[in-house]
Amino acid sequence: MWSFERQVNYYETDRMGVVHHSNYLRYLEEARYIWMEEMGLPYPEFERQGVIIPCTTAEESFLGFLRYGDVFSVHMELYRFTGLRMYFRYQVYNEMTGELCLEAETVHYTTTREDYKPTSIKRSHPQLFEKISELVSDTREQK
Amino acid sequence: MWSFERQVNYYETDRMGVVHHSNYLRYLEEARYIWMEEMGLPYPEFERQGVIIPCTTAEESFLGFLRYGDVFSVHMELYRFTGLRMYFRYQVYNEMTGELCLEAETVHYTTTREDYKPTSIKRSHPQLFEKISELVSDTREQK
Amino acid sequence: MWSFERQVNYYETDRMGVVHHSNYLRYLEEARYIWMEEMGLPYPEFERQGVIIPCTTAEESFLGFLRYGDVFSVHMELYRFTGLRMYFRYQVYNEMTGELCLEAETVHYTTTREDYKPTSIKRSHPQLFEKISELVSDTREQK
Amino acid sequence: MWSFERQVNYYETDRMGVVHHSNYLRYLEEARYIWMEEMGLPYPEFERQGVIIPCTTAEESFLGFLRYGDVFSVHMELYRFTGLRMYFRYQVYNEMTGELCLEAETVHYTTTREDYKPTSIKRSHPQLFEKISELVSDTREQK
Repeated sequence: MWSFERQVNYYETDRMGVVHHSNYLRYLEEARYIWMEEMGLPYPEFERQGVIIPCTTAEESFLGFLRYGDVFSVHMELYRFTGLRMYFRYQVYNEMTGELCLEAETVHYTTTREDYKPTSIKRSHPQLFEKISELVSDTREQK
Repeated sequence: MWSFERQVNYYETDRMGVVHHSNYLRYLEEARYIWMEEMGLPYPEFERQGVIIPCTTAEESFLGFLRYGDVFSVHMELYRFTGLRMYFRYQVYNEMTGELCLEAETVHYTTTREDYKPTSIKRSHPQLFEKISELVSDTREQK
Repeated sequence: MWSFERQVNYYETDRMGVVHHSNYLRYLEEARYIWMEEMGLPYPEFERQGVIIPCTTAEESFLGFLRYGDVFSVHMELYRFTGLRMYFRYQVYNEMTGELCLEAETVHYTTTREDYKPTSIKRSHPQLFEKISELVSDTREQK
Repeated sequence: MWSFERQVNYYETDRMGVVHHSNYLRYLEEARYIWMEEMGLPYPEFERQGVIIPCTTAEESFLGFLRYGDVFSVHMELYRFTGLRMYFRYQVYNEMTGELCLEAETVHYTTTREDYKPTSIKRSHPQLFEKISELVSDTREQK
């Protein structure tokens, strides 16, 4: 599974001494955008073409803690794409201890509309659509 | 259901012009702590007694958007308490439009240990335990 | 001097157990926007008219600490307006202890341009301009 | 001058479409901690020895904007150390355009006390003290 790693920033910790749980959605976003860039689909290119990809659902299981100075990795895949919705899975590991800190899923949809309502980009942006389809990790899950 | 409301801060928005989705877990935390205070159980009191309440799972459905200047309300209840785990439900509404923007659940556990492993406070802190039990919204769901 | 107060949020603290110093610029922004709203100049109205007010310089002296659960107040005034630049002064107090936690100044400029370069709104938006001028705390400092 | 670079994260932008000005103090903190680590003085080591280094003043001139997708660099140096106070200077550049986006200075002090009052570590932690002294960029400015 694709992954990236980086260090925890001091300002991401809270008074418990660990990364505040709200920051994990930011780590997952960082992972998605780095992944998209590496896959040849940088998100700023989507925006230039008038497409955005809001998050519609998120599920997170917080299984361990990250502390200041820890290095963590985010492993992720786009495991399903319906033509409208993109399904991502993630694991976050503490690279110092090997501990699994987070299991998560997020679902996103494409939109080209000013009101951000879900809109298929199959006809309006066939190249972006095609490229996303090719990135799905498990072709059996693709429709 | 108990609720509080406040305005969206400018710094909580992102370049889509709406509240960044990671901020909703912060809004839910704000709601829990204000609720705990109003219920006579201020969280700093837990900390003084050596008890903390980490988040173990979170599920969020993002149904609408909040923009800068919008007033929103967070409605919440503690709907279940197992003696170890606290189950919270939330709805976030845009008070300008009446739109439901978020439905969410979070689960938390009590711990008194330095390694933050789940620990019942039934015997160690019977008064806090008792007080939490009384706050469960639906007594049929309480064990 | 005008002021508002609120509680410190848990997620605003860091592993030192105090409010992370980067959050004070957010508190000052909150103060400015609440103040503008109370003065009859809500910032969303500026945006609707195509005017934004970026921050150009900030100076902060961190004199004390805010902890989770503390109530703080931000006292502020617009002490000078040159027609292009707005000069604000602030003090942040810990309302639990009376301690002065922050002294700060920020300077902002008006712009109507896509590249965000400073632009006087004296002719383009005379009413906004007039209203800002009236809000300057010390008329001797106004030009 | 020492520097590091990274990309702007989406969640660091605000509804103006640029990095929110409060995030620059976070970028400077990131730079300090990476620099300290590279200099053989990782901040977690300070903490293990009971020393922390709060920020006491910050001055920032916001000269340009960073947008989502931009790569920026933070250039910095410890230009003075009085035995108690550490003086840092920074420049942040947009690496896409070469534009200078921020000039800043921050001052920090060492403390070993629970109330975070300034305390010299010259006698209590001579090795840390010595190491900091060696890192001052301009020996004429060192006392």
